[in-house]
Amino acid sequence: MPKTYQRIVLASRPSGWVTEENFRLEQAAIPEPGPGELLIRVRYLSLDPYMRGRMEETKSYAEAQPLDATMQGGGVGVVEASDNKNFAPGDVVVGTLGWQEYCVTDGKDLVKVDPNLVPLSTYLGPVGMPGVTAWYGVNEICRPEEGETLLVSAASGAVGSVVGQLAKARGCRVIGIAGGPAKCSYVVDELGFNACLDHRQHGDTRALAQALAKVAADGVDCVFENVGGKCLDAALARVNPFARVALCGLIAGYNGEDIALQNVRALLVMRVKLQGFIVSDRMDLWPPALAELGKAVATGTIKYRETIAEGLEAAPGAFIGLLKGENFGKQLVKLS
Amino acid sequence: MPKTYQRIVLASRPSGWVTEENFRLEQAAIPEPGPGELLIRVRYLSLDPYMRGRMEETKSYAEAQPLDATMQGGGVGVVEASDNKNFAPGDVVVGTLGWQEYCVTDGKDLVKVDPNLVPLSTYLGPVGMPGVTAWYGVNEICRPEEGETLLVSAASGAVGSVVGQLAKARGCRVIGIAGGPAKCSYVVDELGFNACLDHRQHGDTRALAQALAKVAADGVDCVFENVGGKCLDAALARVNPFARVALCGLIAGYNGEDIALQNVRALLVMRVKLQGFIVSDRMDLWPPALAELGKAVATGTIKYRETIAEGLEAAPGAFIGLLKGENFGKQLVKLS
Repeated sequence: MPKTYQRIVLASRPSGWVTEENFRLEQAAIPEPGPGELLIRVRYLSLDPYMRGRMEETKSYAEAQPLDATMQGGGVGVVEASDNKNFAPGDVVVGTLGWQEYCVTDGKDLVKVDPNLVPLSTYLGPVGMPGVTAWYGVNEICRPEEGETLLVSAASGAVGSVVGQLAKARGCRVIGIAGGPAKCSYVVDELGFNACLDHRQHGDTRALAQALAKVAADGVDCVFENVGGKCLDAALARVNPFARVALCGLIAGYNGEDIALQNVRALLVMRVKLQGFIVSDRMDLWPPALAELGKAVATGTIKYRETIAEGLEAAPGAFIGLLKGENFGKQLVKLS
Repeated sequence: MPKTYQRIVLASRPSGWVTEENFRLEQAAIPEPGPGELLIRVRYLSLDPYMRGRMEETKSYAEAQPLDATMQGGGVGVVEASDNKNFAPGDVVVGTLGWQEYCVTDGKDLVKVDPNLVPLSTYLGPVGMPGVTAWYGVNEICRPEEGETLLVSAASGAVGSVVGQLAKARGCRVIGIAGGPAKCSYVVDELGFNACLDHRQHGDTRALAQALAKVAADGVDCVFENVGGKCLDAALARVNPFARVALCGLIAGYNGEDIALQNVRALLVMRVKLQGFIVSDRMDLWPPALAELGKAVATGTIKYRETIAEGLEAAPGAFIGLLKGENFGKQLVKLS
């Protein structure tokens, strides 16, 4: 076992787009676990849009990421040494491990997972936080009925891909919005969505709403919103009465600026229910959601795609790419 | 009884602010009620912001008001003659009577009311559609708990005044937003709100939000939104986690243009539930709401204020004033 490890700290807060200069790679000695602690070797890091909010001083629901501290973030790892009776060397665990090769923790908030059920990396994707997020929004907020139309933005992403497949399984017509022809083809041809709109082909809300009208002639009953901006405005231009909007993310504004919502009147006129939500508010939903998702991934009923960056030093670039939509499916970093 | 009566028709659709030229006063012969019909002499017309939407071709939930037809709208009147077994001369009725001195109808959708319980005009205000609207939004959407803070815009208006009094009765801290010192004083001194902000004193969202912060130090749990624009944005700047927004009206945009919502991120970060609603969607709520409201108005528990324009010809000017916030409390037209 090596004596030192690498970690990435937040060097400065971004103004506008995140840059590589906001991060700093450091070396440190691998600590010994103290009483009740365990040492984890991190195998995969999860990169998620919500982390952009944490890089600001106050703007997000998550606590701000401290400067000069290891970047927070979810990961999956293997226990190397343990003084904690709940964990033994070899155990595979998921939790907030941080952007680092090794992690010492007291084990609270860690979850042991079965490495034989599904691939390790999926515990950060469809069988992890993104999957539960999708499950929560679909089942608790959208509550789509058979035959209804559900629209999801960032449709090829870690959350959106699960949203669409869950809604298809519930008998919905599912329409995605994604960036570029490759993602759109994947969403329709491999995930089985009924249609997918390429937002890059439709420069403004009006154009996107017109394209949506063609593939959703009967209107939209449910919106699972990951993006905001013109995606949400176009959706609201086509909602049916009593539509439900699960507001999960606003990645369109994750480079710092807010994007105003234009179609406010549709919320009133169509009696829309819009609900902002965060998956950690409903820990009671995780066990049933993960049971369903684990089975679905294990049996191939739910498909997924990953973009895997290699090595810790690739994390900042991969994160910046994620905010720009350059990833395809779940963005991970695999540590060597 | 006279042989002719006056009515007001929609002469043209407004572009931007409504003007007197959008209306035309006509004379017509008073018709005889046909088989099953009844003739009503209209006593009060109700003027309501939603009518602005109907003047457009397609923009609102209500069907567009046809050109050259009598302006639609609620009213209270007395049956003069009847060939309908459900109604007798002298009955007092509430319904869509239109901007006219006499009205012939088949009696469907008319409701008979008791002229001895409360003043006739209140069946168009706190014991009518505006009152039920308030009751619906408070009890079915905001669902405030004792000790929570509720914010309502257009606080001295027909809906807002009832909203605040219902919420006070449920143990809430209630804050209003109204236009001008007279309305703000009324809301606090006569209706018993804890505070009222004069939106004219606070020119933009930032200023209004800062004023709100001073009177709602613990944040806002419920928002009953009648106005939109900077009122809604300022409210969202101060909402607590899991706040509920009952979206009832967007009078800020009733001169035709839409006003964008800036604080979209607060909906996500604070996990806000926002629900657009229209009182006619839930006819099941009217009987319990009207029972409570009728009793409260009869006993003086719920107070109200009216602005009464005299004579049918005053209706267009009063309606334009309503859209500009010149009325104080429920805007009515009393027919001679």
